Amino acid sequence: MKCSLVLFDVNETLSDMGGMAQHFEEVGAPPGTAALWFASLLRDGFALTAAGVNPRFAELAGGSLRRVLAAEPLNRNLDDAVGQLLDAFQQLPVHSDVADGLAALARRGIRVAALTNGAAGTATSLLERAGLRGHFEEVLSVEDAPRWKPAASAYGYAAEACSTPLPDIALVAVHPWDIDGAARAGLRTVWLNRDGAAFPAYATAPDVTVRHCAEIAACLNP
Amino acid sequence: MKCSLVLFDVNETLSDMGGMAQHFEEVGAPPGTAALWFASLLRDGFALTAAGVNPRFAELAGGSLRRVLAAEPLNRNLDDAVGQLLDAFQQLPVHSDVADGLAALARRGIRVAALTNGAAGTATSLLERAGLRGHFEEVLSVEDAPRWKPAASAYGYAAEACSTPLPDIALVAVHPWDIDGAARAGLRTVWLNRDGAAFPAYATAPDVTVRHCAEIAACLNP
Repeated sequence: MKCSLVLFDVNETLSDMGGMAQHFEEVGAPPGTAALWFASLLRDGFALTAAGVNPRFAELAGGSLRRVLAAEPLNRNLDDAVGQLLDAFQQLPVHSDVADGLAALARRGIRVAALTNGAAGTATSLLERAGLRGHFEEVLSVEDAPRWKPAASAYGYAAEACSTPLPDIALVAVHPWDIDGAARAGLRTVWLNRDGAAFPAYATAPDVTVRHCAEIAACLNP
Repeated sequence: MKCSLVLFDVNETLSDMGGMAQHFEEVGAPPGTAALWFASLLRDGFALTAAGVNPRFAELAGGSLRRVLAAEPLNRNLDDAVGQLLDAFQQLPVHSDVADGLAALARRGIRVAALTNGAAGTATSLLERAGLRGHFEEVLSVEDAPRWKPAASAYGYAAEACSTPLPDIALVAVHPWDIDGAARAGLRTVWLNRDGAAFPAYATAPDVTVRHCAEIAACLNP
């Protein structure tokens, strides 16, 4: 597949949120609350996007965390639990396959950038902690776009910021909603399917599916 | 608050999904999977809405159920579990406070309609099983609107279908995203907060908050 720039999603695509379930258990919430929190956060962020707003990720993250935790028997007060979990979210590691994937893209001379619905600062810190920031020519946030992904204008903003036409960009993401939105906006798409799940029929299918970041480079021609 | 028509949301506002947790347990999934499923369903529906699509609720319901169940150790095959849970979703009861609320609105001569992101047929069956269909002059679905709620065009469609100006309509809903979208679209809003939760700061606050459907009528002047 022809492509001169790989645009990585950040949350769960680069960052590894697997440890969050244990952090929820530490404050007394069932481990499944981690997945409910993140689904609720995105649900409400996308709802505001559909209503024409471009909300702040941090506000949504804190507010939806407060809502899901309020229903749970915590072992500390709500403010402390929210603070502790938001701190943990700011300290996530990257997935173990990311470094190899970036090295393979570098060897093939494929440009790399990131586009997050979160804050640019959070994404930059994530990559710096992992020693991988240097691989990315841009670390972009929808904070500077008209709307969150998967609205078309978010991908359009990234294409403009990277001075690259939409069809020359391949979005890499673990979330089907991101693959769907990018495809509708005119990008190429690579679904990073680490856990071997089925792709949902209601979303636009990816151009390419890989199980591991290191497989991405071989699928692309710069 | 002046209002000639009350427009009820349907899922969780009229229908009682509390029993779904037990249905999930019956197929071997943790009871918390029910909440994760419904949050994921709305997340993906709103994502498609933000990307400019008007998806079918039933397709989203089945597809996202399949995805959340695939990660769980079920006591039967995936197809059977999905089928059983979708059947249960089609047979939900209405909340115990709904009949009183509708009777109070009727006594005050306030018109009543419903607008669902689900199928009109599912909402109609729900109300018929409860013997309450007669209270509603319209049972509307976003299937016939340009987009799902909370896109402004969904509320606009309902206003047109009911031949009532937006500011004369009060949306009643349990979900803050629906209150927010309706307020942005120009409707009045009544948050039905049955469990006494806090309203999230990132959503537009409701005009009125009630704990029980029977309190709605007293807040409105036809």
